Amino acid sequence: MSTSLGIDIGGTNIKAAVVHADGRVAAFEASGWSGGAPVDALMTIERLAATVFERSGLTCETCGCGCAGLIDHRAGIVHRSPNLPQWLDVRLAEELSRHLGVPVALENDANAAAYGEFRAGAARGTTNAVMVTLGTGLGGGIILNGSIYRGSHGFAAELGHTVIDLSGGVRCACGTNGCVEPLVNAASLVSRARTLLEAGERSSLSSHAGELTARAVGEAAAQGDTMAARVMAEAGRTLGVLLGNIVATLDPDVIVVGGGVAAAGSSLLDAAATELAARTAVYQGVPTRIAVAELGDTAGVVGAALVADIAASEAFTG
Amino acid sequence: MSTSLGIDIGGTNIKAAVVHADGRVAAFEASGWSGGAPVDALMTIERLAATVFERSGLTCETCGCGCAGLIDHRAGIVHRSPNLPQWLDVRLAEELSRHLGVPVALENDANAAAYGEFRAGAARGTTNAVMVTLGTGLGGGIILNGSIYRGSHGFAAELGHTVIDLSGGVRCACGTNGCVEPLVNAASLVSRARTLLEAGERSSLSSHAGELTARAVGEAAAQGDTMAARVMAEAGRTLGVLLGNIVATLDPDVIVVGGGVAAAGSSLLDAAATELAARTAVYQGVPTRIAVAELGDTAGVVGAALVADIAASEAFTG
Repeated sequence: MSTSLGIDIGGTNIKAAVVHADGRVAAFEASGWSGGAPVDALMTIERLAATVFERSGLTCETCGCGCAGLIDHRAGIVHRSPNLPQWLDVRLAEELSRHLGVPVALENDANAAAYGEFRAGAARGTTNAVMVTLGTGLGGGIILNGSIYRGSHGFAAELGHTVIDLSGGVRCACGTNGCVEPLVNAASLVSRARTLLEAGERSSLSSHAGELTARAVGEAAAQGDTMAARVMAEAGRTLGVLLGNIVATLDPDVIVVGGGVAAAGSSLLDAAATELAARTAVYQGVPTRIAVAELGDTAGVVGAALVADIAASEAFTG
Repeated sequence: MSTSLGIDIGGTNIKAAVVHADGRVAAFEASGWSGGAPVDALMTIERLAATVFERSGLTCETCGCGCAGLIDHRAGIVHRSPNLPQWLDVRLAEELSRHLGVPVALENDANAAAYGEFRAGAARGTTNAVMVTLGTGLGGGIILNGSIYRGSHGFAAELGHTVIDLSGGVRCACGTNGCVEPLVNAASLVSRARTLLEAGERSSLSSHAGELTARAVGEAAAQGDTMAARVMAEAGRTLGVLLGNIVATLDPDVIVVGGGVAAAGSSLLDAAATELAARTAVYQGVPTRIAVAELGDTAGVVGAALVADIAASEAFTG
């Protein structure tokens, strides 16, 4: 069975894995990095690739690379990336192919993660799937009719910057008001918890106040902390509004929710599902399933590897 | 060249046309109807079909029928339709085929209109197109990779019921709060104009107050009425937020805006385009084009006819 090398370049980590054609990971390795120049990323990737090849005892005939930012997947270029400020119009697929000696398919990282969950995770067996990744930001990936949907200019699935709260929303990093991202991301959970603590609400988080994280809020909610549960439920209801908009627009088989905030506890997703049901009652039951991501940290590398595998087999047959 | 019969069943009108394979209309006829029982619609359609066949001197080998409501296009069934309360699980394609003696393809009316604009109107020559139809309600149709996108359960493109104003929005007919439809539909324009008139604003519409229509507001705005222009601009900015969400989610080549409210004047679309540009400035220019619908009243029949034409040719070749 063929294997493919999957790479995932983020703002703080680079990951690599040898991935079987069915999505199983033969070897995985991650490395912290500073989000510096492309040449540094290439050296890190070479090292990670050598590690996963050696550990798995396998080689790969193809490589897929997911990268945050605006990607031209046909030309293999990273035009720009908010988390990689030194990267401007980098011909990453070509460079990486020269270093690794195999053809390289380049993909937006959120698309790659969605494709990973679609082929080998919580959305496998479906036709239309949307993935929402909730952490520092809110990323989206859309799979329609079994393929990544990129839009006409590579901008599709920017779900974090859809507006749901025009009148009451807060300012988003993108410069506009009412986007869903700043209402449900990790920073919003911490900020809301801090506000409630400062207002004197009793909580097991009181001792955390200086170094509060979204994970800590989620864990406290899971352990029965009333204030933390309230924060998670509020964010969950807001997330449910986004899920309703996804259903009304794309009516997928499944929406997969992943990322650090989603992993922080079930209270968020429970509240989101309740809100979604209330908002779509007019349809007499929404058949779209809400699922927790299954691949965790490896969704991006698995998806990138499988994108490359498909691209290669299409090149052979087409 | 082949011709196809297009039918469009709405809540107050039934339309029929003989349509050439390139989308040109050979003959068109409409009839008011009361939204009654399916048998009444079938008799009206038979009469309209006879009229357009006679007038064009042509016959058709296929028929496509657009109908408002929840449609199972594969089974040819109208499950239910808000504007046709007597219709429940009507096997419309089968019935219509028996009456007309040709195969019938059934389609949701908003999808049919979008497909009409895609094949023969403002979105021709594109790959990915979204149509927003703004009148009594706000309907949507999505064309992706050249085909109607219906979603996994036929619910897709319910754009009027996406939420954009969670905190400030008004109650929607669907039972939830913050949907875009009641913020920009015909009734909202009339209601806003009436409020401003009652507050004593000077306007050429003062004499209309009893029988105010969205069309009258649009016409007054076009003729330079300040109050009417303000109403149109407010609705336009809100529409622009929806357009921004469509761009962020689907990144289409074009968004076509049609329907009575859109036809009522350019001030609405101008304001929408300005708002869209402001909200997507972070992308350094949105390549998605905003276009006014070109087919007007015939978009639905043209689209339905062409859907049937495609379905028939696929049946022959596939």
